Amino acid sequence: MHLPFAARLSGLDTPLEIRRFFEVPADPEVISFAGGNPSPITFPAEAVREIAGRLLLDPAGGPYQYGRWQGYQPLRQAVALRWQEKFSTGGPEDDVIITSGAQQAIDLIARAFLEEGDGVLCEEPSFTGAYLSFRACGAKLFGAPMGPDGMDLDAAEALLRQNPRIRLIYVIPTFQNPTGESMSLASRRALYQLAQKYDRLILEDDPYSELRYSGTPLPSIKSMDEDGRVLYAGSFSKVMFPGMRVGFAMARRDIVEKLTQLKQATDVHTNELFQRVVHTYLTEYDFDGHIAQDIVPAYRVRRDAMLVGLASHLPKGIRYSRPDGGLFILCTLPAGADELALARVLRNKKLAVVPGAAFRTDTRPGPAPMLRLNFSMPSPDEIRRGCALMGDVLGTALARSLF
Amino acid sequence: MHLPFAARLSGLDTPLEIRRFFEVPADPEVISFAGGNPSPITFPAEAVREIAGRLLLDPAGGPYQYGRWQGYQPLRQAVALRWQEKFSTGGPEDDVIITSGAQQAIDLIARAFLEEGDGVLCEEPSFTGAYLSFRACGAKLFGAPMGPDGMDLDAAEALLRQNPRIRLIYVIPTFQNPTGESMSLASRRALYQLAQKYDRLILEDDPYSELRYSGTPLPSIKSMDEDGRVLYAGSFSKVMFPGMRVGFAMARRDIVEKLTQLKQATDVHTNELFQRVVHTYLTEYDFDGHIAQDIVPAYRVRRDAMLVGLASHLPKGIRYSRPDGGLFILCTLPAGADELALARVLRNKKLAVVPGAAFRTDTRPGPAPMLRLNFSMPSPDEIRRGCALMGDVLGTALARSLF
Repeated sequence: MHLPFAARLSGLDTPLEIRRFFEVPADPEVISFAGGNPSPITFPAEAVREIAGRLLLDPAGGPYQYGRWQGYQPLRQAVALRWQEKFSTGGPEDDVIITSGAQQAIDLIARAFLEEGDGVLCEEPSFTGAYLSFRACGAKLFGAPMGPDGMDLDAAEALLRQNPRIRLIYVIPTFQNPTGESMSLASRRALYQLAQKYDRLILEDDPYSELRYSGTPLPSIKSMDEDGRVLYAGSFSKVMFPGMRVGFAMARRDIVEKLTQLKQATDVHTNELFQRVVHTYLTEYDFDGHIAQDIVPAYRVRRDAMLVGLASHLPKGIRYSRPDGGLFILCTLPAGADELALARVLRNKKLAVVPGAAFRTDTRPGPAPMLRLNFSMPSPDEIRRGCALMGDVLGTALARSLF
Repeated sequence: MHLPFAARLSGLDTPLEIRRFFEVPADPEVISFAGGNPSPITFPAEAVREIAGRLLLDPAGGPYQYGRWQGYQPLRQAVALRWQEKFSTGGPEDDVIITSGAQQAIDLIARAFLEEGDGVLCEEPSFTGAYLSFRACGAKLFGAPMGPDGMDLDAAEALLRQNPRIRLIYVIPTFQNPTGESMSLASRRALYQLAQKYDRLILEDDPYSELRYSGTPLPSIKSMDEDGRVLYAGSFSKVMFPGMRVGFAMARRDIVEKLTQLKQATDVHTNELFQRVVHTYLTEYDFDGHIAQDIVPAYRVRRDAMLVGLASHLPKGIRYSRPDGGLFILCTLPAGADELALARVLRNKKLAVVPGAAFRTDTRPGPAPMLRLNFSMPSPDEIRRGCALMGDVLGTALARSLF
């Protein structure tokens, strides 16, 4: 039989070639700069084993039974407290719902607010997983270009003015995926004022801000929120580990109530054991010490190795970001470069990167002369070898005017 | 600021009083027939601790890292194999996606197929969690009354004929929630033929069929599927434990591909450790023995205690189902009875039940003279005392013509 899927889902069909670029290469000889995974060397496995083993002995069976839609109450409180005390993020008007990763926080927010045909203003390029959630609601994406200071706010304002159906502004203000760039404090304030002026919501996606290797921490946009228009998505994937799927949304209480209804419809609640594992780790272990000692130094070494490698090997005329944190560096090719062709050549030479085409807000083919490079998964040595390889391939392409 | 939620979500607002009936009573003196939880005495906690402890030692970090959208490959294969060998359910055209509980299987299917304004034909009364997923897509619910043999197929056909926008027929053919009743083999076949005649999809929700305490197993509707119109939702919540949130959808390959896109947008993948725990439990432990020895006898005793208690105490004129399995018995009150008022009186006498109003497909108030009784959570002694209490309250109400 012919099965017609809901029409709004047509935007979900990513070309197979682009999806393939994200896959972990099967060939162990391939160096991968393509992933977005945190490194297994940063996972607090010993603590997790100890905590999980203990919690699974609970005579009341707590981690085994159905839990609450909104999440494990002590974890919600611990999250609210930590984000308030440490990041001034979230106030008395706000509430927290535990989600199955920050992806689900984005997805629930998309479902709560987006009518079919509504618009979402995104940084261009941005996180493809968020695009999927917006597109699954039948929303249209509008991209304001990323500059070194975050989203280009003149372009953003023009889009807001021209498109009254844009309901949501989606940003990753800190160590953005895929650029690695952060919005300055002034830009954060200006974006918030823009959202006020045009009366739109901001979805602040913040999975990376604790992965800072240099520079000074910046306040979240949510910390500037006066009228409940900022919805904040947080994650434990990069500061503990992603396989457990634990994240959260923080927003005004009435919004969290609506997200809770949707959460019940979606998966009832998030895995109960791992909500409790995160709670125990946050409250009984040295969570901040884990980030400062086990994660940040390991990633700083890798970021530095990549920055040095790119400086040594890339031909002139090829720019790249110099992020203070996160997992990614974006390499910007000369205008007109065919980044898909270059990514294919690199792949044949056993280096995997993600071409800019993957991050376009527009699903139609078009220019995106960029390559995303991940430095959390490869070893420093792989990073050095990969950068040399990139230098060779891009140098040859430049010499042959292949751009 | 005023935050307008998407209009399609207006159907999610359940009256607070009705939601409260589902909550676990805080007062420990209250006997609860209101839950729908499996009993902690059935959880294979020792095996889970052993397996989880072992898997968390994985030197490759597998359970900690991001997994595949479609689920852990060996679990998908083990599920496909078990359901094919044991239940003749799923064929070479079909595929399996692991979901965060069967709730998410229902939700992904709803999102894949339902346009705003589409209809879903449900058994009336039926599972409120599924209603939520359909309503969250802006679908309208149509209820065909439940008879002793499952959905009334004449009513179903009339609804299909009159409502061309019904795209999906949602049924729990075995030990239905809340009635406990099952569709006969003839009814299953007839429903499948009806779906073929009107070219509609069937969503077969099957969380309870392994909880059989008497009678002969019946084939799934999916096992009769010739043209890929039956989508099957399965769960490990009632045969292992629900807190982990592991279930699955089984459907034609092209449908599972679409569900996989939505899964990526929703929560990326299901908790990786517990997918592997279920896989190990299915393949290395005596899963069928666990069901046969640890679950079925415990629940059979409770079902029998409730049937004996109701037979002994309920006044004449009050009917109740006599299910061969599952978790629920439905008590049907005389027409015109105010089941909400009776549930309130019972609650004041320290017995919690769920009134029929909770299970209406129509969100507007209307007649639903039923009380759902759960027998998996209370002890046999609590069941006996609860039935005596029901007898008192319903007898008094009947005597005073309160119905």
